[in-house]
Amino acid sequence: MTIQPVPAFEPPYVMAVFSNVRTPDDTGYPETLDRMKEIVHANPGFLGYESARTPGGLGITVAYFRDQESLTRWRQDLEHQAAMKQGRADWYESYTLHVATVERSHGFARNG
Amino acid sequence: MTIQPVPAFEPPYVMAVFSNVRTPDDTGYPETLDRMKEIVHANPGFLGYESARTPGGLGITVAYFRDQESLTRWRQDLEHQAAMKQGRADWYESYTLHVATVERSHGFARNG
Repeated sequence: MTIQPVPAFEPPYVMAVFSNVRTPDDTGYPETLDRMKEIVHANPGFLGYESARTPGGLGITVAYFRDQESLTRWRQDLEHQAAMKQGRADWYESYTLHVATVERSHGFARNG
Repeated sequence: MTIQPVPAFEPPYVMAVFSNVRTPDDTGYPETLDRMKEIVHANPGFLGYESARTPGGLGITVAYFRDQESLTRWRQDLEHQAAMKQGRADWYESYTLHVATVERSHGFARNG
């Protein structure tokens, strides 16, 4: 599969940038991450998701939603809330969350 | 130096998410990237910058600005415009740019 950036959508839409540094504790993390992806994909307003992490440890995850209602549904999901709580307890050294409305966007691809 | 996510700023502020896949062509890329960092840091409205790339090739860069005017100044910078042109010609297989106003944000750090 060719790696592709999440495409540009028609504004306005919502994006949440979650930049973070992990602890060494990986207990339960991969399973929870998989489950969180399942839940967010099932959200009717979910548009896309992309994530990258440097070897040095900085991770950036961006999730895109059609509107604030969709993001609110994601934030209020009970399994997601439990995961966030465990994240602060065990998995994250530090993080920042930025929630924003996208006003413009565009994409480029070399060969169509 | 401890790796830290860019902190949360007082909303509203502006963020630009640039997600991209590189070509194998690295000619001039590191030097240009360094120069672009210099220019953007000199922008009075510049708040912060963070970037991560997976081994698979997806890169996500986020730049934070105080307001739209600061971002416009960055977009209109002539060296930046030349770099963007060369990026499409040589360095990027594909990319998406999302420009947004941050409405809320918060941070977490394990030990103060």
